[in-house]
Amino acid sequence: MNAIADYRTFPLISPLASAASFAGGVSVTWADGRISPFHNLWLRDNCPCGDCVYEVTREQVFLVADVPEDIQVQAVTIGDDGRLVVQWDDGHASAYHPGWLRAHAYDAQSLAEREAARPHKHRWMQGLSLPVYDHGAVMQDDDTLLEWLLAVRDVGLTQLHGVPTEPGALIPLAKRISFIRESNFGVLFDVRSKADADSNAYTAFNLPLHTDLPTRELQPGLQFLHCLVNDATGGNSTFVDGFAIAEALRIEAPAAYRLLCETPVEFRNKDRHSDYRCTAPVIPLDSSGEVREIRLANFLRAPFQMDAQRMPDYYLAYRRFIQMTREPRFCFTRRLEAGQLWCFDNRRVLHARDAFDPASGDRHFQGCYVDRDELLSRILVLQR
Amino acid sequence: MNAIADYRTFPLISPLASAASFAGGVSVTWADGRISPFHNLWLRDNCPCGDCVYEVTREQVFLVADVPEDIQVQAVTIGDDGRLVVQWDDGHASAYHPGWLRAHAYDAQSLAEREAARPHKHRWMQGLSLPVYDHGAVMQDDDTLLEWLLAVRDVGLTQLHGVPTEPGALIPLAKRISFIRESNFGVLFDVRSKADADSNAYTAFNLPLHTDLPTRELQPGLQFLHCLVNDATGGNSTFVDGFAIAEALRIEAPAAYRLLCETPVEFRNKDRHSDYRCTAPVIPLDSSGEVREIRLANFLRAPFQMDAQRMPDYYLAYRRFIQMTREPRFCFTRRLEAGQLWCFDNRRVLHARDAFDPASGDRHFQGCYVDRDELLSRILVLQR
Repeated sequence: MNAIADYRTFPLISPLASAASFAGGVSVTWADGRISPFHNLWLRDNCPCGDCVYEVTREQVFLVADVPEDIQVQAVTIGDDGRLVVQWDDGHASAYHPGWLRAHAYDAQSLAEREAARPHKHRWMQGLSLPVYDHGAVMQDDDTLLEWLLAVRDVGLTQLHGVPTEPGALIPLAKRISFIRESNFGVLFDVRSKADADSNAYTAFNLPLHTDLPTRELQPGLQFLHCLVNDATGGNSTFVDGFAIAEALRIEAPAAYRLLCETPVEFRNKDRHSDYRCTAPVIPLDSSGEVREIRLANFLRAPFQMDAQRMPDYYLAYRRFIQMTREPRFCFTRRLEAGQLWCFDNRRVLHARDAFDPASGDRHFQGCYVDRDELLSRILVLQR
Repeated sequence: MNAIADYRTFPLISPLASAASFAGGVSVTWADGRISPFHNLWLRDNCPCGDCVYEVTREQVFLVADVPEDIQVQAVTIGDDGRLVVQWDDGHASAYHPGWLRAHAYDAQSLAEREAARPHKHRWMQGLSLPVYDHGAVMQDDDTLLEWLLAVRDVGLTQLHGVPTEPGALIPLAKRISFIRESNFGVLFDVRSKADADSNAYTAFNLPLHTDLPTRELQPGLQFLHCLVNDATGGNSTFVDGFAIAEALRIEAPAAYRLLCETPVEFRNKDRHSDYRCTAPVIPLDSSGEVREIRLANFLRAPFQMDAQRMPDYYLAYRRFIQMTREPRFCFTRRLEAGQLWCFDNRRVLHARDAFDPASGDRHFQGCYVDRDELLSRILVLQR
């Protein structure tokens, strides 16, 4: 009964004081007075014993559909080691560590506590104090790595200095997090002016504030932009916090905000070899009504299709959002120099590039993507 | 005024018969009698001229936020070549091909027509007539490739025969579509029984019907499973169409269906090096209320957390769905032999493996993923 289906440890917040069964479950009272109900199927489902969980993978082999729906508790006690011990009417027995049990309790108070402990995004405007880290420290020291990754997660815009200016230097850095997310532009993409460009990114044009690849069902989570050479005139980078703009829009123009949250529009990325399309709102919300991400790249947008009645108002909302991305109160502008890189949350922070003059000097950036899943996994492993 | 921001061609469905401006837009009447309104900002936004669209990338350089909100039409005519020609009050002029314009019209009838033309999923049960293709034909012939990919998209379960039994043979096949989606299990993963398994997939256990990686925000779209050797006793593959089961559940137990659509639950994939978590419903719906995908892998599930009130009913709904995946009416079972492979829609079709006896003979499969975006892009390019 030792296997626990997790790699984390669960500190003892409060010991179990008493436990009693009720019709359909077990109610426990903790030493600090909290009362948590656990239903029989939940308890049976989460039995951590070596017959129910395969110790090598820590994955469940028991399936809750394989016991009777009305499985009953024959006896419930608190063991000498503080565990909750349940004896089932089919002969099976389960024991739950009180630290684990408290971390998974679903009484209203426990749920609210866990909700409140979720990481919060720090919204920012033009006065952002940019988190900057040293490349060597990030490569060698796990504490610095974790600090950087938390800034990427919560602030969404970071810079690294002291990066080697060799092409490909991004690869070992990205791998400090995990594997790189490939796209049709490659594993690494070279951002420079090209005669046969397959994206406006590969021209010398200015690029309006945008997220990369809103044309994909899952926009890339993190974007890296590494400066190898920047001797050309122009080409400054501007960033805005899309979450801050969405929040300002929600307050200043609630009807426009709702239109952008609720109206799916199509984005397209097409060249001679590919034809990507994705239909989603500019401001998608999650199931609790929070802004999940921003999707916006005007140059990758298909003609709007929606009820003709809605079209004029939608255009006003769309224009307003774009105009807000240009307001100085939101804009953070810097010139990236050789040996520096940006790492930002591509699903939250919009980025822009001023036009540059390719005749005035060389300009060569390399970029790549790593998804949010890999970032969050790496953070959890570093925090174990 | 020749650049068109697309690589598709748009056949002339019906010529333009007349055009007249109204307050805020232009109304066109087609030769077949349909009437389509187009608003001024929509028309200006979609101007296909070489100043508004960069011809090399076919991406927009014009930004609709850069013209006055009340931009006016000075004159609208139908040109000798059949195009709609708009003269704007700021001096710009735009001309729209009638085939393109009809394909993007947003009057109610045009929208309904386009909605009805979207590809439909063919739901299936145990009597499925399995689409089988020859590996050599798929590799060499684009028509066969397209036929196979349409079956993957619409049926969701296909088989290829005549596949070389060398390790890595999947790579050139997957690249007939696009690049491979990597995961923490690698670009290719080897499915065989391992002593130090980091997933129950790499044991000889039976695996209940599941989707791969519901622990990621975007579950992998297509899964390939390529059989190199299958000399072991047991290990048959079973598939069910998750969309067919969801539809049956919706009819047979609507309250259970709604609980599975509306209740986010957590999935977890954890080992010594990673810790992936994703919270989403088992049956996520899209914005029009259609089933978008199925997310289910019992062995990758975290303890349920939800209002205690809801827990007992949720368990009944979850058990019912799992019990339905086992009903013979839904199950399609086959043994895969060396030189054959499965390619299926991992976000729709659940797959299972019977336990096998590793002492009875060798069993070695290789697998990889390609995302739905890449599948749909490849289909659109092949259909150009």
